[in-house]
Amino acid sequence: MDQEHTIQQSDVRFFAGRSNPALAAGIARHLDIQLEDTYFSRFSNDNLEVQLGASVRGRSVYIVQSLTPPVSDHLLELFMMLDIARGAGARERHAIIPYYSYARSDKKDMPRISIAARLIADLITAAGATHVMTMQLHSPQVHGFFSLPTDPLTARPLFAHHFEAKAFTPEDTIVVAPDTGGAKSASRFADLLSMRTAAANKTRVSDTEVRMGGLIRRQVQGFRRAIIYDDEIATGSTIVELCQLLLQASIEEIYVVCTHGLFMGEALARLTAIPQIQEIVTTDTVAIPPAKRLPNMTILSVASVFGQAIQRNYARQSIGDLFEYWKDRG
Amino acid sequence: MDQEHTIQQSDVRFFAGRSNPALAAGIARHLDIQLEDTYFSRFSNDNLEVQLGASVRGRSVYIVQSLTPPVSDHLLELFMMLDIARGAGARERHAIIPYYSYARSDKKDMPRISIAARLIADLITAAGATHVMTMQLHSPQVHGFFSLPTDPLTARPLFAHHFEAKAFTPEDTIVVAPDTGGAKSASRFADLLSMRTAAANKTRVSDTEVRMGGLIRRQVQGFRRAIIYDDEIATGSTIVELCQLLLQASIEEIYVVCTHGLFMGEALARLTAIPQIQEIVTTDTVAIPPAKRLPNMTILSVASVFGQAIQRNYARQSIGDLFEYWKDRG
Amino acid sequence: MDQEHTIQQSDVRFFAGRSNPALAAGIARHLDIQLEDTYFSRFSNDNLEVQLGASVRGRSVYIVQSLTPPVSDHLLELFMMLDIARGAGARERHAIIPYYSYARSDKKDMPRISIAARLIADLITAAGATHVMTMQLHSPQVHGFFSLPTDPLTARPLFAHHFEAKAFTPEDTIVVAPDTGGAKSASRFADLLSMRTAAANKTRVSDTEVRMGGLIRRQVQGFRRAIIYDDEIATGSTIVELCQLLLQASIEEIYVVCTHGLFMGEALARLTAIPQIQEIVTTDTVAIPPAKRLPNMTILSVASVFGQAIQRNYARQSIGDLFEYWKDRG
Amino acid sequence: MDQEHTIQQSDVRFFAGRSNPALAAGIARHLDIQLEDTYFSRFSNDNLEVQLGASVRGRSVYIVQSLTPPVSDHLLELFMMLDIARGAGARERHAIIPYYSYARSDKKDMPRISIAARLIADLITAAGATHVMTMQLHSPQVHGFFSLPTDPLTARPLFAHHFEAKAFTPEDTIVVAPDTGGAKSASRFADLLSMRTAAANKTRVSDTEVRMGGLIRRQVQGFRRAIIYDDEIATGSTIVELCQLLLQASIEEIYVVCTHGLFMGEALARLTAIPQIQEIVTTDTVAIPPAKRLPNMTILSVASVFGQAIQRNYARQSIGDLFEYWKDRG
Amino acid sequence: MDQEHTIQQSDVRFFAGRSNPALAAGIARHLDIQLEDTYFSRFSNDNLEVQLGASVRGRSVYIVQSLTPPVSDHLLELFMMLDIARGAGARERHAIIPYYSYARSDKKDMPRISIAARLIADLITAAGATHVMTMQLHSPQVHGFFSLPTDPLTARPLFAHHFEAKAFTPEDTIVVAPDTGGAKSASRFADLLSMRTAAANKTRVSDTEVRMGGLIRRQVQGFRRAIIYDDEIATGSTIVELCQLLLQASIEEIYVVCTHGLFMGEALARLTAIPQIQEIVTTDTVAIPPAKRLPNMTILSVASVFGQAIQRNYARQSIGDLFEYWKDRG
Amino acid sequence: MDQEHTIQQSDVRFFAGRSNPALAAGIARHLDIQLEDTYFSRFSNDNLEVQLGASVRGRSVYIVQSLTPPVSDHLLELFMMLDIARGAGARERHAIIPYYSYARSDKKDMPRISIAARLIADLITAAGATHVMTMQLHSPQVHGFFSLPTDPLTARPLFAHHFEAKAFTPEDTIVVAPDTGGAKSASRFADLLSMRTAAANKTRVSDTEVRMGGLIRRQVQGFRRAIIYDDEIATGSTIVELCQLLLQASIEEIYVVCTHGLFMGEALARLTAIPQIQEIVTTDTVAIPPAKRLPNMTILSVASVFGQAIQRNYARQSIGDLFEYWKDRG
Repeated sequence: MDQEHTIQQSDVRFFAGRSNPALAAGIARHLDIQLEDTYFSRFSNDNLEVQLGASVRGRSVYIVQSLTPPVSDHLLELFMMLDIARGAGARERHAIIPYYSYARSDKKDMPRISIAARLIADLITAAGATHVMTMQLHSPQVHGFFSLPTDPLTARPLFAHHFEAKAFTPEDTIVVAPDTGGAKSASRFADLLSMRTAAANKTRVSDTEVRMGGLIRRQVQGFRRAIIYDDEIATGSTIVELCQLLLQASIEEIYVVCTHGLFMGEALARLTAIPQIQEIVTTDTVAIPPAKRLPNMTILSVASVFGQAIQRNYARQSIGDLFEYWKDRG
Repeated sequence: MDQEHTIQQSDVRFFAGRSNPALAAGIARHLDIQLEDTYFSRFSNDNLEVQLGASVRGRSVYIVQSLTPPVSDHLLELFMMLDIARGAGARERHAIIPYYSYARSDKKDMPRISIAARLIADLITAAGATHVMTMQLHSPQVHGFFSLPTDPLTARPLFAHHFEAKAFTPEDTIVVAPDTGGAKSASRFADLLSMRTAAANKTRVSDTEVRMGGLIRRQVQGFRRAIIYDDEIATGSTIVELCQLLLQASIEEIYVVCTHGLFMGEALARLTAIPQIQEIVTTDTVAIPPAKRLPNMTILSVASVFGQAIQRNYARQSIGDLFEYWKDRG
Repeated sequence: MDQEHTIQQSDVRFFAGRSNPALAAGIARHLDIQLEDTYFSRFSNDNLEVQLGASVRGRSVYIVQSLTPPVSDHLLELFMMLDIARGAGARERHAIIPYYSYARSDKKDMPRISIAARLIADLITAAGATHVMTMQLHSPQVHGFFSLPTDPLTARPLFAHHFEAKAFTPEDTIVVAPDTGGAKSASRFADLLSMRTAAANKTRVSDTEVRMGGLIRRQVQGFRRAIIYDDEIATGSTIVELCQLLLQASIEEIYVVCTHGLFMGEALARLTAIPQIQEIVTTDTVAIPPAKRLPNMTILSVASVFGQAIQRNYARQSIGDLFEYWKDRG
Repeated sequence: MDQEHTIQQSDVRFFAGRSNPALAAGIARHLDIQLEDTYFSRFSNDNLEVQLGASVRGRSVYIVQSLTPPVSDHLLELFMMLDIARGAGARERHAIIPYYSYARSDKKDMPRISIAARLIADLITAAGATHVMTMQLHSPQVHGFFSLPTDPLTARPLFAHHFEAKAFTPEDTIVVAPDTGGAKSASRFADLLSMRTAAANKTRVSDTEVRMGGLIRRQVQGFRRAIIYDDEIATGSTIVELCQLLLQASIEEIYVVCTHGLFMGEALARLTAIPQIQEIVTTDTVAIPPAKRLPNMTILSVASVFGQAIQRNYARQSIGDLFEYWKDRG
Repeated sequence: MDQEHTIQQSDVRFFAGRSNPALAAGIARHLDIQLEDTYFSRFSNDNLEVQLGASVRGRSVYIVQSLTPPVSDHLLELFMMLDIARGAGARERHAIIPYYSYARSDKKDMPRISIAARLIADLITAAGATHVMTMQLHSPQVHGFFSLPTDPLTARPLFAHHFEAKAFTPEDTIVVAPDTGGAKSASRFADLLSMRTAAANKTRVSDTEVRMGGLIRRQVQGFRRAIIYDDEIATGSTIVELCQLLLQASIEEIYVVCTHGLFMGEALARLTAIPQIQEIVTTDTVAIPPAKRLPNMTILSVASVFGQAIQRNYARQSIGDLFEYWKDRG
Repeated sequence: MDQEHTIQQSDVRFFAGRSNPALAAGIARHLDIQLEDTYFSRFSNDNLEVQLGASVRGRSVYIVQSLTPPVSDHLLELFMMLDIARGAGARERHAIIPYYSYARSDKKDMPRISIAARLIADLITAAGATHVMTMQLHSPQVHGFFSLPTDPLTARPLFAHHFEAKAFTPEDTIVVAPDTGGAKSASRFADLLSMRTAAANKTRVSDTEVRMGGLIRRQVQGFRRAIIYDDEIATGSTIVELCQLLLQASIEEIYVVCTHGLFMGEALARLTAIPQIQEIVTTDTVAIPPAKRLPNMTILSVASVFGQAIQRNYARQSIGDLFEYWKDRG
């Protein structure tokens, strides 16, 4: 009774919320299965209504939804799609959440706020999910907020592959984390390219303003090229602040890498204003409309990463090498 | 250790989401307690953040939030406020939801949709509520979707009191329900005014279009004034359709009563276009901005109804006469 | 690894409680699988004891139990059978409940009563069910009381097929719902026969007494034959009251249709006393003993409906057309 | 803020199911609080309906129900009363179950049966209880089946007090347990009277037939009076069998003690047929109708035991000395 | 789609905690599947860390852990292994617990202690188990403490087979239970050998001291050989006390049988000091190190019992004859 | 009904596990309430048994237990004490866990390990806790692993107060975090003393070996005194490694601050071997036996911190300023 290695169309149903249908379609293509229709409408009282377009009875159901703006609507869509699948007798409900925006709300840094990363994880469970796949959580501990089997994946190999082709020499290129919290993730990326890592010391003044310690300048002395490695760019204030410090030191060329490219508000204008930024490398966990695609922007698709992870999970193979381990040890 | 009858400020904390602060303030005034501050913000990635402005440790916390547009954001606010209160050690978390919009999604009238009225009730529980108060649910069974103690209140006495002052004679005035489903609720209202009831036979073609059986014309023969009694007006298509039929019969004057006045899209224009509508009587479960207040619109505040219910619940008195019983028997 | 379309005897176990073994046997015959033995006894202290007669380890277990009198004993039998199956390692526990009597207790129409339709649904879950199938719930919202995947089926196509054979003309035959609450269900039945619908306006005075508004007489003017369409007949008081009104109008021939034929107390005597009742068409969701079968009674078996639904569920096919959707739209 | 020691009428509500209203009234009298009305009815489809006759909002609610025949109906009443109290906002729901009949179904002594003592305990929790009080469970482990705080009480001090008044000498009187399983309970009773204990070796052939090893005859040699100490008498077959063996030995006078006196079927006739039985001492955990009260029967009321336990629980005092500890140690 | 009868290596993963790797290996050999590696370490702060050495995604995972000293560490290992398997997506998590030490804490025999047998069962569920297999629970009711499907197995047939080979005559050999609580279990063993049973009347003074009633001497009159049948030997005080009484009667040869041979503290010295003990027959549910194996000790492996049970459970066959039913009836 | 501000002895019960009775006594003294007895024993089969020494019925129960070695036994004690309090009817169960050792296992840094910080949090909930208080969690996100209201406290003000007395000048003293992960916590400490912060870049090679980047030397240039600020010292390898780097730079005097002083294995010898360490300042969250107290060790008691937090929680006051907020903003 050994399990087949390829996904059978008859055994699964693949659906997409409205946040990122292109990525969902890409994953489906990778798996060579059909992306089923889903019908969305809004009643005149603003209630959402969702209808899944194919019978799910006894099937493994995959629902792709990124928590991009409008986040609240996309969450409600996800809750409803999971609930429908449960109520209609789906055997498994896999929530594929390429960008889990609420991962940022992972601690109580003020009194009487919600650790919303935990709350939303609990609501996703209450709505009917049986398994979660996501990518590059803001902090590794957010994994532990999910009571369900959860696979946090990484785009790091995609990025490494992209930079390997450039054949930068480790002698003049350094990987820079904008924040001590991201230092370990950046250094694992640097390891893949045999480069060194530096970490800036960011203090967040507000959602849109950061202060950055000047010590980073000392750390990058002697390098002329920096690859800034971050998990998410929203307003870009962190990156801009960091670029200024780097350019005050010996850095001449900057590459910016981020998994989740939101580019909200003035972000694109700010990044464009720094001519030393050679390239912005991001992924499609967040759908980036054509109007937001800068000439120096490279968008790597994570469809193959999710596709492989789903495929291996289905075939009951380890997905270890797609996984974001937060390895501290050798 | 008999319980005091008045609410002690030191024992409760009263908060409002962003959907209807005026009603929340009205309820607080009725109870003579303070409406605490709540701080709302939106991160640059569109995540909501909420902070309660007063310590809730060991207190009974009341959170007022109507599910008005934008419904999804208001739901997320409610989830977060409940979660904060739970996490910060509030003894009880009362979700006061004057308008529970999702009550309309109370059955599966198509394959593979969500009975969202149940789903949302479950999520409210998962987010930390311990008690729910709401008003005029779309159908009486929705009460049973809540796993928590739930009090569905009614505005009917307010409406009855309003019409008693007009002293219409039951001989020439009939109460009309636009739908057989609402016939019983309408007839309980009519009983308070010693009037008779008729029920139209509505078939919903789509969210914005209804078909109405002509038999209602026979039922209102002999009356010259109709009080249309409905739970909610969104686009107004039902009311408009019904008015046309009534005017084809002997009806000359129309009063429209509804608990939840959403008045979306063309609703106000449509209602204005019917000169025989003397008055539209609604409540403030949905906040109606000044621009939407027609000259012939009367808005009765339900603050006293919620205030009394909260007061009696606190004082452990029965709230039976504020309650929406779906009485069938004498 | 496509799923087989026919149920394998080796993969399922089919059991019946004591409420309706004949229907259970009929469903098993339809599925061509064996109805296993179950042993029931009562200890001298009145405790029930149930033993399932076949190993269920790893199997899909189906348990057929209608909530017919004695309802409490039949419920306890169902709870125990589900618990046994769970404890003995059954993979799935399907509660097949052709008549869910407590669906009638679906709202709080008096203070301090139980919404027992929700309570019993929760207890069925607590006892170990993983899926529920039932038929013609008293109101569509009761579906939402179940936290489990639940399929409310309908006997309407059986009834329609029965009446199609009679070839009544829509010009002289009208379908009559005894209550506005049942108007929509009746009109979907009428649609299948291209007939028109009327709905009486019933007020329930007590469990055994109803008052019925006379307006129904106007609605049936011009028709000479009525098909009364109801979900359940217990004491028959509703039907008798309605027949009197119909006979006061132009109706000469009456057919009575109901899914759940309980015929308690004086019901049969009352129905027999109305000679214009040509036929009473019901089903076997409630077992009707030979002594209760009137000469003009036709009992259609729902074994095929449940059989098909179980078969399709097993084969992971949609059961949409057996399903009781509460469709409001075109 | 020290808690008052006496129960305040305004803080509690006391209700009784239909199994044992006299005992419930006795407990209420002991506590000097009012026994509130409860209204029971049965719909024509055999559904039960229960209405609590007093507001329970915020109160501690006590519900007295013994699981006596008809056990299934009494269970359903209990489930509903708990559910009503929960739904209506009662602060605590205490299920007072003087006789928990299903305690006997405490193990799997055949394949594919239910450990119903656990199942029913789970359903009582699911129905809304927050605390359980019961008496003389069939085995001490049944206590562990309840997930809720549970107090299993004992009537042993009542029995001991009754026999102390008789001043039997320990030299000629021996306490006899009909079964090795009850030996420890019997010996704790014997300790209170400074008597010795013997235990018969019962094997249960069926619900109504037992086989008893003859070794008990050796154990009672030298005694002329036996006090048989058992937890429950249903058909009496055990007692009768044991009496015969005792009379074959040196025993001349027999006293029978049992907490739960069901006296089903031929029990009373059988016991009457043994003239050496001087007295049958039982309690009112099971309501014994006048017709079943034999001349030599003494019924001790446990109202004071439950009353004291409720009183102490309310006053937050230890109830240790009313408690059935299954002490093995000194 | 009939299920295969033999376990497929590709479908299962078999792991062992550190309590009894030899038994785990024996079970794996019986099943002809691989025992996977597990890595255990202890951080410098004394935290345990466990890593499973093979991917478990979608597999049925079996974890063998006996609750032998150090019990707390072995429990934590078990909790972690279950949690890992759940988090890593294992389809089923079978906790195979040959010796469930906490079964002894099955009742409240003092105020304010824990019924730890229930608590630990709940924690095993909370940690992620979906099925439990264990052996010879201290009392049959402990089965009911588990909310999961649980199979309590027995070593009785192994013991019976061992003694059948000795061909003792029932005329001179009697089976002796050290405690009335174990009388039924002993008599089922005796039945297999067509022997008679006696039960001593033990009172436990403390964890290490017991008092034993002298009546057992009368019961064994006329026999010269006794087989003491007990579930567990810890300090051996019970057995030693019982041997003394037996030797005061007519018994000349003693055999000691116990499922769980802990032999703590002075147990071996005490047993060695009684020359009439011919043989101590036990099993490997508890790993017995070579130093503790007395010359007259026979250790029967239960690997085949667990192996068969796992095999049959996998193949969905009844495991009734390996099961410890606590049969009272014929 | 305003709540009293001081804890009433009659309303609470305060107990200590065996990990840190001195701290528990200190907290009790701070609160001026009695520390009740708890009795611990170990059965001969290594099972733990715990008995609480005072009635807890209706009380708020506080249980102090630090997860110090032997961690597994201390956890089991905690589980049992919580379970006892729940079973015996305690109104609230507060788990006071000064050192939550498993906070370190907060992410999956290898495949197939447990996020044990979440698992143990879930087991504490399952065992019956209703509230958790702890101190200086290894990472701020661990807070979110608890489903219960949880207060993570901080000893930072104690440390700051201690160093304020020394009046070091910020010009020559720098606070050093041994790891980027602890940089923010260290800089909040430094803020209280108006000092600057540096963060080393530690890579953990194994549980007992770390590698430390040399960049820290540049960061401390110009300072002659360093205060190393860490959450926990186990083997001391991190501190020793860091001291060596600091001494290679301009640092001459070192102060070591850590909340949780475990000092396992060679830790004390290693620290003693560095003469430049002027003082080791730690707390009593971990009980430090006299033999481990070095001459230059200062142990600040956190009893007052926990005492105040318990007191304020009881009095329903905010405990914000005792709380470990992970503040990023101004």
